[in-house]
Amino acid sequence: MILIRNGTFLTLTEKNVIKEGDLIIKDSLISYMGPQKEWKDKFDTVIDAKNHIVMPGFVNAHAHLAMTLMRGIADDLPLQKWLFDTIFPIENKLTAKDIYFGSLLGIVESIRAGVTTVADFYFHMEKSAQAVKESGIRANLGFGLASKIGTNTLQLKAAEKFINRWQESENGRILASFAPHAPYTCTLQFLKAISNQARTMNVLVQTHLHETKKEVEEFKKKYGTTPIEKLDTIGFFNAKVNAAHCVWMNDNDINILKNNNVGVTLNPQSNLKMGAGIPLINKMYNAGLTISIGTDGAASNNNLALIEDARLTSFLAKGTSLNPELLNAKELLKMATVNGTKNLGFSDVGLLKEGYKADIILIDTKKPHLTPFTDPYSLVAYSMYPSDIDTVLIDGKIVMKNKEILTVDEENILKEAESCYKQLRIPNK
Amino acid sequence: MILIRNGTFLTLTEKNVIKEGDLIIKDSLISYMGPQKEWKDKFDTVIDAKNHIVMPGFVNAHAHLAMTLMRGIADDLPLQKWLFDTIFPIENKLTAKDIYFGSLLGIVESIRAGVTTVADFYFHMEKSAQAVKESGIRANLGFGLASKIGTNTLQLKAAEKFINRWQESENGRILASFAPHAPYTCTLQFLKAISNQARTMNVLVQTHLHETKKEVEEFKKKYGTTPIEKLDTIGFFNAKVNAAHCVWMNDNDINILKNNNVGVTLNPQSNLKMGAGIPLINKMYNAGLTISIGTDGAASNNNLALIEDARLTSFLAKGTSLNPELLNAKELLKMATVNGTKNLGFSDVGLLKEGYKADIILIDTKKPHLTPFTDPYSLVAYSMYPSDIDTVLIDGKIVMKNKEILTVDEENILKEAESCYKQLRIPNK
Repeated sequence: MILIRNGTFLTLTEKNVIKEGDLIIKDSLISYMGPQKEWKDKFDTVIDAKNHIVMPGFVNAHAHLAMTLMRGIADDLPLQKWLFDTIFPIENKLTAKDIYFGSLLGIVESIRAGVTTVADFYFHMEKSAQAVKESGIRANLGFGLASKIGTNTLQLKAAEKFINRWQESENGRILASFAPHAPYTCTLQFLKAISNQARTMNVLVQTHLHETKKEVEEFKKKYGTTPIEKLDTIGFFNAKVNAAHCVWMNDNDINILKNNNVGVTLNPQSNLKMGAGIPLINKMYNAGLTISIGTDGAASNNNLALIEDARLTSFLAKGTSLNPELLNAKELLKMATVNGTKNLGFSDVGLLKEGYKADIILIDTKKPHLTPFTDPYSLVAYSMYPSDIDTVLIDGKIVMKNKEILTVDEENILKEAESCYKQLRIPNK
Repeated sequence: MILIRNGTFLTLTEKNVIKEGDLIIKDSLISYMGPQKEWKDKFDTVIDAKNHIVMPGFVNAHAHLAMTLMRGIADDLPLQKWLFDTIFPIENKLTAKDIYFGSLLGIVESIRAGVTTVADFYFHMEKSAQAVKESGIRANLGFGLASKIGTNTLQLKAAEKFINRWQESENGRILASFAPHAPYTCTLQFLKAISNQARTMNVLVQTHLHETKKEVEEFKKKYGTTPIEKLDTIGFFNAKVNAAHCVWMNDNDINILKNNNVGVTLNPQSNLKMGAGIPLINKMYNAGLTISIGTDGAASNNNLALIEDARLTSFLAKGTSLNPELLNAKELLKMATVNGTKNLGFSDVGLLKEGYKADIILIDTKKPHLTPFTDPYSLVAYSMYPSDIDTVLIDGKIVMKNKEILTVDEENILKEAESCYKQLRIPNK
């Protein structure tokens, strides 16, 4: 059993903020969250959270972990040049080792930034799963799928096999999902088959929807409807879907997502940096969609610090509407935590609440940029740096303590990742 | 003499990136920037910059240092409620001690985030000047002015006295300026008198221009022109002006600023968070304005990490235009450094160049989020955290070494700032 005491606890429940409370972890679960008490229990570990904010870990609800290896290799380029002249040629040459160390690099970066759950979405997923397993991070692993002709039955079978192997593994810390790339890289027939299979297996579908204006307009030219409208007619949303991006949306698109209980994951940094645009955050929020936040891959962000994207989500909501009252600090932190776990298919993760999984971060507030200690929601939402996280627990286990990663060999990961990068032949570099 | 070696030097000059170069500092100036050599000189200090990016310090070209004491006290509120119900009532009660420790808190936070030059803009400026002097940071200190009736001669005289005392003091590290609050809080007569005086004394004028749609519209209703158009007709821009915000601009406004060589300082985080809007970055950039970047005060940002605002400036330029090629990493870093010193009236500050002032930061790149080591411009512009700065030199002096602030007692500043905050009576808290 672990006791965390003396911190300022942001429960994100109706208990709100508990000052100098106690939080007890038994196995993987939170067994007590409340006022400080005298305990007769013997604790294996007592964590003194004095001068710390304690809260649920951040959830990165859309990422491509292995792409961390491609951080900064193709900035300030038009999307087509980025994708077809740089990213795709490199991806064609990636080895299993690249995927493994790229994923580990992304995971270590994520844990340091307080991310306790991540949605991965790529290929060679066995290696990514291995990295997730070893590191102790919670993840939903999306098996990447694409087919421009009919249904790729081989891919679908491989995905099924992968999902059957990993779904609910590691005490439920790992989930797996089908991850069709997008309506512009998959046929409608394939998308329908994937959705049917996901529904049968009761697992999540992750996909990219309505990221760029161009893709929506080209689809409309071809089919007369938006991708989301078309996917609705073929029953794609009968499965549980987490849709990344959702930048170019009409009212009907938003209604369809709402009526089908589709999770929406915004990636505002990636969308701005890649020139995709600014999502209609307020409209989607007012429609009652469950909005979570993602970083997208490091090649288009260029880091995995979820708090940066969360902050930007709030700022864009306020700035585009000229209304600073929208999306306040507390609402924002829910998007960055419990909404993410919901959209990724985890239940009972993302709050400091009895019976919930112990995915917890400690934020060191004894810093000039977190002084004075005014409103803890505000300090996290608007002032903290990703580096202020010093201790991270996932599924009841301490994975980082006082800035030291305990589960994997970080030094070696940095070295191997650097070496993998040097062996990639980057076009024009 | 100080020698910095083994780093990756981003000179921001035509020398571009120098890998494993040498940089030598003699007194307050850079005396050599180039390839590594055998030196016969005896150096007082040798800084090993292995695994570090070395570059000019960031310039925060618009801030209100003492407001750091008000971080997070009034978030998610409409501007009027923020200003009139919270900020103004508190400001009326601020003591000299509050200003002193609020400024020191802001300075320590700034140095840690790699800011080597800051534009302050407030009242009780003697105390802020004291803090700047002791801390070793470079600053242009704006003496705040406001008057709704005629010309406030007393204020103007006090500003003159303050400027005469501080201008070009501390080896030129401190400049001083007139800082009329805005056209909606100062009469045209007062603004004209201030500008004339600034021109006579050959010092800068700092002011807020066109921050909100409302202020521009109300001014137009009253005068039939925008504030900038009116200021042009009264000769306000005959003095050297640094204009903060500039969100709501028409083409003529932009032309006027360009023709008068007015410096523009964007504050994108503050503008979004306060619901002011999104500045027309691309238009101003294409018009050839000298654009620098500011954080604004911590009560509206909510931190002083200039790199966050710089990154957002690039992202907004790309995202609003749907063009990822705009404002690339290197151009952005110039805005965040040398453009700021130009707009604040400093010459020969902001490049790694012989004869320039030695205002230099070292960024530790041995971090997961800065791995692999791809493009150093990109790593700084898009990936680094403010906390990656570990060593800071200003005017040839080491003010932070390996994360330790050497000039002032940081621990005591945090304690005193917290205590000042607790003695403010915050409305509704």
